[in-house]
Amino acid sequence: MSGNSFGQIFRITSYGESHGKGIGVVIDGCPAGLTLDESLIQNALASRKPGQSSITSARAETDSYIIQSGISNGITTGAPIAFFVPNIDAQSKDYEVLQQAYRPSHADYTYDMKYGIRDIAGGGRSSARETIARVIGGAIAQMILNHYKIEIVAYVSQIGTISCTKHYETLDLNSVQSSLVRCPDQTISEQMIAAIEEAKQEGDSLGGVITCVVKQVPVGLGEPVYDRLEADLAKAMLSINATKGFEIGSGFAGTKMKGSEHNDIFYKEGDQIKTKTNYSGGVQGGISNGMDIYFNVAFKPTSTIFKEQETIDNAGNPLMMQMKGRHDPCVVPRAVPIVEAMTALVLADHLLRNRSARI
Amino acid sequence: MSGNSFGQIFRITSYGESHGKGIGVVIDGCPAGLTLDESLIQNALASRKPGQSSITSARAETDSYIIQSGISNGITTGAPIAFFVPNIDAQSKDYEVLQQAYRPSHADYTYDMKYGIRDIAGGGRSSARETIARVIGGAIAQMILNHYKIEIVAYVSQIGTISCTKHYETLDLNSVQSSLVRCPDQTISEQMIAAIEEAKQEGDSLGGVITCVVKQVPVGLGEPVYDRLEADLAKAMLSINATKGFEIGSGFAGTKMKGSEHNDIFYKEGDQIKTKTNYSGGVQGGISNGMDIYFNVAFKPTSTIFKEQETIDNAGNPLMMQMKGRHDPCVVPRAVPIVEAMTALVLADHLLRNRSARI
Amino acid sequence: MSGNSFGQIFRITSYGESHGKGIGVVIDGCPAGLTLDESLIQNALASRKPGQSSITSARAETDSYIIQSGISNGITTGAPIAFFVPNIDAQSKDYEVLQQAYRPSHADYTYDMKYGIRDIAGGGRSSARETIARVIGGAIAQMILNHYKIEIVAYVSQIGTISCTKHYETLDLNSVQSSLVRCPDQTISEQMIAAIEEAKQEGDSLGGVITCVVKQVPVGLGEPVYDRLEADLAKAMLSINATKGFEIGSGFAGTKMKGSEHNDIFYKEGDQIKTKTNYSGGVQGGISNGMDIYFNVAFKPTSTIFKEQETIDNAGNPLMMQMKGRHDPCVVPRAVPIVEAMTALVLADHLLRNRSARI
Amino acid sequence: MSGNSFGQIFRITSYGESHGKGIGVVIDGCPAGLTLDESLIQNALASRKPGQSSITSARAETDSYIIQSGISNGITTGAPIAFFVPNIDAQSKDYEVLQQAYRPSHADYTYDMKYGIRDIAGGGRSSARETIARVIGGAIAQMILNHYKIEIVAYVSQIGTISCTKHYETLDLNSVQSSLVRCPDQTISEQMIAAIEEAKQEGDSLGGVITCVVKQVPVGLGEPVYDRLEADLAKAMLSINATKGFEIGSGFAGTKMKGSEHNDIFYKEGDQIKTKTNYSGGVQGGISNGMDIYFNVAFKPTSTIFKEQETIDNAGNPLMMQMKGRHDPCVVPRAVPIVEAMTALVLADHLLRNRSARI
Repeated sequence: MSGNSFGQIFRITSYGESHGKGIGVVIDGCPAGLTLDESLIQNALASRKPGQSSITSARAETDSYIIQSGISNGITTGAPIAFFVPNIDAQSKDYEVLQQAYRPSHADYTYDMKYGIRDIAGGGRSSARETIARVIGGAIAQMILNHYKIEIVAYVSQIGTISCTKHYETLDLNSVQSSLVRCPDQTISEQMIAAIEEAKQEGDSLGGVITCVVKQVPVGLGEPVYDRLEADLAKAMLSINATKGFEIGSGFAGTKMKGSEHNDIFYKEGDQIKTKTNYSGGVQGGISNGMDIYFNVAFKPTSTIFKEQETIDNAGNPLMMQMKGRHDPCVVPRAVPIVEAMTALVLADHLLRNRSARI
Repeated sequence: MSGNSFGQIFRITSYGESHGKGIGVVIDGCPAGLTLDESLIQNALASRKPGQSSITSARAETDSYIIQSGISNGITTGAPIAFFVPNIDAQSKDYEVLQQAYRPSHADYTYDMKYGIRDIAGGGRSSARETIARVIGGAIAQMILNHYKIEIVAYVSQIGTISCTKHYETLDLNSVQSSLVRCPDQTISEQMIAAIEEAKQEGDSLGGVITCVVKQVPVGLGEPVYDRLEADLAKAMLSINATKGFEIGSGFAGTKMKGSEHNDIFYKEGDQIKTKTNYSGGVQGGISNGMDIYFNVAFKPTSTIFKEQETIDNAGNPLMMQMKGRHDPCVVPRAVPIVEAMTALVLADHLLRNRSARI
Repeated sequence: MSGNSFGQIFRITSYGESHGKGIGVVIDGCPAGLTLDESLIQNALASRKPGQSSITSARAETDSYIIQSGISNGITTGAPIAFFVPNIDAQSKDYEVLQQAYRPSHADYTYDMKYGIRDIAGGGRSSARETIARVIGGAIAQMILNHYKIEIVAYVSQIGTISCTKHYETLDLNSVQSSLVRCPDQTISEQMIAAIEEAKQEGDSLGGVITCVVKQVPVGLGEPVYDRLEADLAKAMLSINATKGFEIGSGFAGTKMKGSEHNDIFYKEGDQIKTKTNYSGGVQGGISNGMDIYFNVAFKPTSTIFKEQETIDNAGNPLMMQMKGRHDPCVVPRAVPIVEAMTALVLADHLLRNRSARI
Repeated sequence: MSGNSFGQIFRITSYGESHGKGIGVVIDGCPAGLTLDESLIQNALASRKPGQSSITSARAETDSYIIQSGISNGITTGAPIAFFVPNIDAQSKDYEVLQQAYRPSHADYTYDMKYGIRDIAGGGRSSARETIARVIGGAIAQMILNHYKIEIVAYVSQIGTISCTKHYETLDLNSVQSSLVRCPDQTISEQMIAAIEEAKQEGDSLGGVITCVVKQVPVGLGEPVYDRLEADLAKAMLSINATKGFEIGSGFAGTKMKGSEHNDIFYKEGDQIKTKTNYSGGVQGGISNGMDIYFNVAFKPTSTIFKEQETIDNAGNPLMMQMKGRHDPCVVPRAVPIVEAMTALVLADHLLRNRSARI
């Protein structure tokens, strides 16, 4: 009800603020008997972490976690699994300037109006540090997906005006992690890095697009009519900080096609029913059809910039503000594991929900 | 859990199939003391109805409803409000051809795989006829919004390759209903009608984009972190049949801007805090900031076309199929009231949820 | 949220008032592929129906239902199953006297205070007529239980001061339906009937106790720690009109035993693990252990009596009131199918929830 | 869904095992602007704590908690409030004997069957140590109730065969905490202590009854028809370890009264509408009527006893077992704050839910 939980059967509840004690997540509804694979958690956290390179924030967050419950001898017990990640390197004094000012396009003003109280340092719950909870929850969800051999890979397909226009099937998705900006097209990757560095020099920021691909999805996931798989994916993506859009399959471009071009023709190959094209993006009538699911997520340019900006304080007085501190000029590369995590959460939940589809 | 309900406090539950007895909706959580305004329901149903003109389906659905509960002397009592809309003009024999065939890009195959049983005629639950439940629920929700003076207007901003590129603030949104295709730009409206008629001649179909604008939204709606207002709007929109994308505020285009251009600068005008630009689309940190909310929804071209198509039957045998029956070559204009209804449902729910934000 | 739905995965939503158009129920989350057995529904409705004998209300409610959705060729499709039972014999004028008066121990006053509006005739939502929704939902739930061979039998074990003190294992539970008061002990049954007739003569009413027994329950149903099976059963029972108490297994009497007497000793019989005694009532740690589940539900004497009573009107003025109309002097026998239905709803839901217990 | 959360708007999620790292609770949906009163938490934890006297367990649990989120400068921020209570004095080796044995009337067998895995030490999630989460959540809930001046007092009204038969209105409820067994009748209190000491000598255990009284409840709490206030209270109580029954108002005894005796006659006193008697227990039609709410909760004798007992191991082999370790011969006194906490959770949730009753 208050928006800190996600999922129906497989459900995470997140808590913690960016500059408080730490970030925690309780994962409820995870089936018993699952072997914990900590490398999945560590890799996802490492990929999300700032301070990875010259183009990301200089904070050296450790992101070491404590498993508080739900695991016995490396196996899930059916009890809620709780993780806690202490905050270590928080520098609240960077935020002192914000005591009264409302940062443009941040959540300062709206939180203040909604709750009548504002947890100043680091943006509190609105900080991207909350996404640690998602990444850990998503890693546990991925362990369920692994039982079904479902694979999720996301990558950066656009930074600012630099786009990777190739279809995902023509890219080597294994190479995503070797790119600093998580773009599997090496030439484009270098252009993206240059663009981010230029923005950094200017004290400015960039946005971009993440493409996510899911392979080996079983047929039948998704609950008509309001909990269609694409509806739950859209919600998951738009719940990530700084996102402004979602499109699945043919997306906005598909609106310009004709039905005769867009319809995906069924055929049988061996035992499997497939479609010749996949403009549907792997979902038909809200239910997965076994083809790849793929979608794009739009990220606005980061609100935190180092150029001087006009704004007002909480009394409505105009002022000029200049941000300090450590912030990425482009958060899109670090959002790749978050997109993957939210995707895994949606799919794990729908896998369990689907267990009640038939008597 | 099974996806036939939408909303948390203000919650609709939908039932019924396109070619069964009818469509019903139970609206639970509507506050007592609200005066029922039936014109809102009738107008929305009329706008959704097929058979309105040469460019829409020839079915003459009456869509007359029965109020089964929850209203006493024209006032809501706090009890669940139930509506039932009998099916009258259903012609199941149009669907006999479908007994075995899987229509391309429809839900036939996925429902069959998920449930092991398929309700053939009219697509059962996957039919757009279910949207009657949304439209009625949305009209009740709008009665709540009227108490807060919140206005929702949606319009068609693209059909096929014909786009209305003007900003919504430069359009006369009062003229939407006078356009057959629900586009307030008269020149573009005519081009859209011509495009739909051409597609109809070809037995083909078109997609498009609906833009939705919400004015007078109170500050403070939306629940961080997973139930951000834009996340719930995205889910609502992607739960509508044939949608492939959602973008709010600057959307996908905003990904190419720099932070210094994209940040919305706060200022005070009289007693009100506003922003100079509104790339945020009226939502910051997942919470409404009082500026207009506006977003786009992408609709694919209708799957039902009258050109001959390849497909397979449920035994996997290839066959050629030719659809008959009465279907719109473009459903986008009729989806306008559905987009408005889903928007109203999200906002009414968040208005009530927000009542617990402060002690 | 507004209390008109029950269950998590297998979930009913009820609507309708006692003297409005009728009572409806939407059953969502029922697995596809279940054969509809209408005799279960008809028997339960017949058992719940007033007008069955001299000791029950003289209303001749027909309770014939319309199936509105979710069934195709006698099989559940996975879509929501909706039933509607029109009101036929409602006599609203019996209720005119109530326009201003608050009937003692009824819901008139509290509904008026909560909602600021009162649906006078028949008590609206607070009427026992709403239990039709439960009985139909419970019958569908029982169809799921039948797949697992789970049997539910409830009976009247006390009316007023007349008690059937025999343990349920010594009674012939097949004979419940042949007793007018649903008590399988024939001697006690006759005493109960006499007591009810005496109360009727006096214009007074009686309460009582229903005992419910569930056999063949699989081990493992119930979700620790807040959704223990007994917790969900307790909620289900206390949601029935006129109930004042619930006890499972040894119940209140067990509080006087010592641990060494009360502990149920495990042993193995063939392949099955059993307990020598069953003071636990078939549930340990909130989870079914495979032994019989049995519990008691307390019903207060019906509030509607025909003796003259003091009360006040909605302006607070004292007045004397005399009820008219048709009402049972004791509703306990008619509540037997309602107790069974609510039990079935809890168990069907937990059977489906348990499908996610293990990977 | 997996039963580790309680409440709808005001909602707690509990995690942690008795012999793991500790117990945690996330409290979501707490309104912003509430002043944290830590004495409420500390008093409730102290009252729940073992090791308080010769009649309770000898464990010296510290129960010191860490506030992890949701509080800023002593005020709730609207963000989830998380508490963690580390386990300090856990002695897992006391539990080694249990590796294979199923303790009679414990959760060992049912957890093992449900999850296929058992977290041996201390009973894992089924341990009463989980109730720390409830007590903390309840203390936060009580802070909301304090805004409405709602008072909750529970006391022990029966231990084994020793009963305090006086009506709660004749007792000095302020003296509950000064009794070792939480019974405000001093003579009975001494008899109860003697009974517990006798049971302790015998290595046996006792059960009992807790009575809970709620004063100053606003009219209007409770959601018909399935979420009646008494239904949610019943669920709350039966979710507590070792409970076997619940009765509200006249309860099981009231089943023997006649309607003319049982009906609570309305009258007006000053501005307030009251009832002359209160057999309803402060709830009519599922909604609070402003009179005191009072109910009884039955607790079975503790399963852990020190007498030798028969049982079987997980292979089904019979064996004799003798429990060691530190356990209370009667947990009922320590359950008093748990009953109060669960009551507060139900009421806080319904206070917030009631904010949507009217437009």
